Amino acid sequence: MLDRLRIVLIGTSHPGNIGGAARAMRNMGLDDLALVTPRCDPQDREAYSRASGANAIVESASVFESLESAVEACTLVVGASARSRTLPWPMITPRALAESLPESLAQPSSRVALVFGREDTGLTNAELQRCHRHVHIPTNPEFSSLNLAAAVQVIAYECRQAFLAHEEITAQATDPETAQPFGVAWDNPPATHADMERFFDHLEKTLIALEFHDPDNPRQLMARLRRLFMRAHLDSMEMNILRGILGTIDKRLR
Amino acid sequence: MLDRLRIVLIGTSHPGNIGGAARAMRNMGLDDLALVTPRCDPQDREAYSRASGANAIVESASVFESLESAVEACTLVVGASARSRTLPWPMITPRALAESLPESLAQPSSRVALVFGREDTGLTNAELQRCHRHVHIPTNPEFSSLNLAAAVQVIAYECRQAFLAHEEITAQATDPETAQPFGVAWDNPPATHADMERFFDHLEKTLIALEFHDPDNPRQLMARLRRLFMRAHLDSMEMNILRGILGTIDKRLR
Repeated sequence: MLDRLRIVLIGTSHPGNIGGAARAMRNMGLDDLALVTPRCDPQDREAYSRASGANAIVESASVFESLESAVEACTLVVGASARSRTLPWPMITPRALAESLPESLAQPSSRVALVFGREDTGLTNAELQRCHRHVHIPTNPEFSSLNLAAAVQVIAYECRQAFLAHEEITAQATDPETAQPFGVAWDNPPATHADMERFFDHLEKTLIALEFHDPDNPRQLMARLRRLFMRAHLDSMEMNILRGILGTIDKRLR
Repeated sequence: MLDRLRIVLIGTSHPGNIGGAARAMRNMGLDDLALVTPRCDPQDREAYSRASGANAIVESASVFESLESAVEACTLVVGASARSRTLPWPMITPRALAESLPESLAQPSSRVALVFGREDTGLTNAELQRCHRHVHIPTNPEFSSLNLAAAVQVIAYECRQAFLAHEEITAQATDPETAQPFGVAWDNPPATHADMERFFDHLEKTLIALEFHDPDNPRQLMARLRRLFMRAHLDSMEMNILRGILGTIDKRLR
């Protein structure tokens, strides 16, 4: 899918932005860069310096005389726009754009162009009117002008996320408070329910022996400790460490 | 909400990246930038050139001698990590992180730090172990190294999108069944970073006194306990209970 996405930069002034856009593209798995009437030398040293390891994208960038020729073979053309123009156009967010890509690219011959304008003046009305839709990155209204490479970064990032979601190769957990432990990369199996209960029994006995906990006046102590350790969702090695600590305390108290 | 987000850059080498990060921040409505032991002059001309209109963020950036001091008052510390380390830590995507922020920042005293490492080597293991969670930007596995300012751009963008979405749904009642730690329904404010570090100091001393922990042969004991309690994200009452237990053990050992 990502190999049928073309990034088009029109009238770029700073070679560093071409390099920065290339790096952002490669980071996100895109590689087709088209430059329309650049106002700088795209092969300038500064472009390669900012491209870092994405030199190949700068080297192979195709250069066109017009937006028309750059997007000729594309089936969907989306222009990045900082603001709504006199003539309102279908305007979408980067996320909505990215999430619509699997559909837009469902047919093998489909190709999508994402078009970015000049650093100073963006896209002209004529250029914007050659786009099927406009994409607007929601920014701080008091400081809305994104750096060109940063805009490419945000859009390319959203495209990659949608691609990953579509391919279902993300093992992303959605609940940051609870879901992360025990994903594919965790190093120990989770503690079982029975382990947990044995641990809470042991913990309570040791706290009584320490005279920290008074079972005749328990207040919420054990409930709070339960909430804490249940929330943490202990793995089996953590369980062993905690049981080991409790055992050591017990021995010292004897 | 966005005004209680601090961006922390550690050991930055290139002033252009500080400027680029500042511009990305301001575009997304963030303004609190902290620099830990920068390896360049943050007030260099190149920083202002890349900051474009975000000069005020560069000017007012605070400089710290250590990560500790930069995140002292923060209640949630999230480190950007390119890869999983020997000891896996709770790892979330930028989107999951951003979507959890309204909850993480529900209490007025809550503050979140987003920590980014050096251009060449990222964050050290010691730095990563001071974080509650790690955030990983899903990139092209063949070219995963994002430019520093681009990484700040992606994370700040996700934070702004979550903020805008949250603003739209503000007056919604919270479901007590699903209320997560530190949402509006939680009963105690979260522990601060400084509280956590004092707790880990105390815990280590007590484990040494118990002869459970041998500092000359530490293995991964403290790292594993750190991971456990950082993941649980202690509230201040839980912190007091644990400190109380440690104090009681200390007294019995004397």
